[in-house]
Amino acid sequence: MKKPLILVVNDDGLNAPGIRKLISIMNDFGEVLVVAPNSSQSGKSHAITIESTIRCDKVIIDNGPQIEYSCSGTPVDCVKLAFNKLIPRKPDLCVSGINHGSNSSINVIYSGTMAAAVEGALEGVPSIGFSLLDYSINANFSESEKYIRKITQSILTNGLPEGVCLNVNIPKSLDGQNIKGIKICRQAKANWIEEFDERKDPKDKKYYWLTGKFINYDNGDDTDEKALENHYVSVVPVKYDLTDYNVISKLNHIL
Amino acid sequence: MKKPLILVVNDDGLNAPGIRKLISIMNDFGEVLVVAPNSSQSGKSHAITIESTIRCDKVIIDNGPQIEYSCSGTPVDCVKLAFNKLIPRKPDLCVSGINHGSNSSINVIYSGTMAAAVEGALEGVPSIGFSLLDYSINANFSESEKYIRKITQSILTNGLPEGVCLNVNIPKSLDGQNIKGIKICRQAKANWIEEFDERKDPKDKKYYWLTGKFINYDNGDDTDEKALENHYVSVVPVKYDLTDYNVISKLNHIL
Repeated sequence: MKKPLILVVNDDGLNAPGIRKLISIMNDFGEVLVVAPNSSQSGKSHAITIESTIRCDKVIIDNGPQIEYSCSGTPVDCVKLAFNKLIPRKPDLCVSGINHGSNSSINVIYSGTMAAAVEGALEGVPSIGFSLLDYSINANFSESEKYIRKITQSILTNGLPEGVCLNVNIPKSLDGQNIKGIKICRQAKANWIEEFDERKDPKDKKYYWLTGKFINYDNGDDTDEKALENHYVSVVPVKYDLTDYNVISKLNHIL
Repeated sequence: MKKPLILVVNDDGLNAPGIRKLISIMNDFGEVLVVAPNSSQSGKSHAITIESTIRCDKVIIDNGPQIEYSCSGTPVDCVKLAFNKLIPRKPDLCVSGINHGSNSSINVIYSGTMAAAVEGALEGVPSIGFSLLDYSINANFSESEKYIRKITQSILTNGLPEGVCLNVNIPKSLDGQNIKGIKICRQAKANWIEEFDERKDPKDKKYYWLTGKFINYDNGDDTDEKALENHYVSVVPVKYDLTDYNVISKLNHIL
């Protein structure tokens, strides 16, 4: 039987430890094609490059069996280029990450990691975004590995329904506290309270840095935030049909 | 009674005819604050600027009563800056557009126009994205105006449920064919077949332009694509809880 073909992408860039770890895991599952940004594309969401050009070059970063391309575009550009120019056949799986930092709850809509997974699903391929709740470049991925392997094996075996990908978030490794297991969750109702850091440049002109504080407004037991708080891996099925079907009849009354 | 406060944003930039038209319409409904990109931000989706700085300056473009800011960031940056630094009180409405080009069906996930509306909804404000199915800089917005006024008045009066904004697409003006009315719709199942235009630079190195062909796979009578094809304005309620609740139990069996 032919080995599965796996497309690997991320938003932290090709040299981030998270994607290097993901590539090394995926090499055990199949033939691996990597198409990832040449620099950090965090917070790029589902952005595509339409007003400038895109570069994409084959590179060798380590001595693994994977084939790798470094791309000047966004994570979604990488997936589009992979499907349309680089991939020898339709992949069996598309994985994105391992992101350095959470993509739980509302973070999913800002995330380049998750946008790449959504784009894979749009191409009809079972797709998973993996994120670790540790922003550090030296994040410890050792405890994540077991869960990434388990989820990958299950999705390669069972597939995913059309129109859905998985948003997998993994708690940060803590001394003396093991991950308790996996919970299937819904996206928590949460938001960022932005606090722009206003500064003056050397010419005394104002500029801003976007910062912020994450607020979880959701007390539900079935949310991704609750699972992560209780040291479980959270898995949220994410869809790209954004229609709120419950609101259609209400709108018919007012418009 | 105090006039409503309306935040206006777009993704085509502050000088695009679409936003100038939207500002002129909104000036009839209330006090208007404009915070929009200083250049085209098409296809930027829900991207935020976290690895570089943001500039935002007060500008005067025409002699209307609105207050305007020109921002170096993405459409979502504009909304975040508006809410956190620029707006005197919580707005009654956030409108985005009028986009030069369609944001129907799957285009919603790539759209900066719609991301700005979603961000408004996240801030708890009734929000609407308006798009005209005409990419031309000289697009004719005259027929759109009646429908934008009608929808704006209704949402100012009735509000919108929490967690939802509206994706309004307006057919292109055609000689001898009037817009037939408004239809509340679901997002059609459609996709882009990408065709990267591969070129060589003067040094003989490859680069790409992202192009593509839109394919509607959906024959349903209740889709935005069908409404637009039949020359109706399409209105899709869009939510930012991306959880596919129907898939949760299935995942509980396989993970």
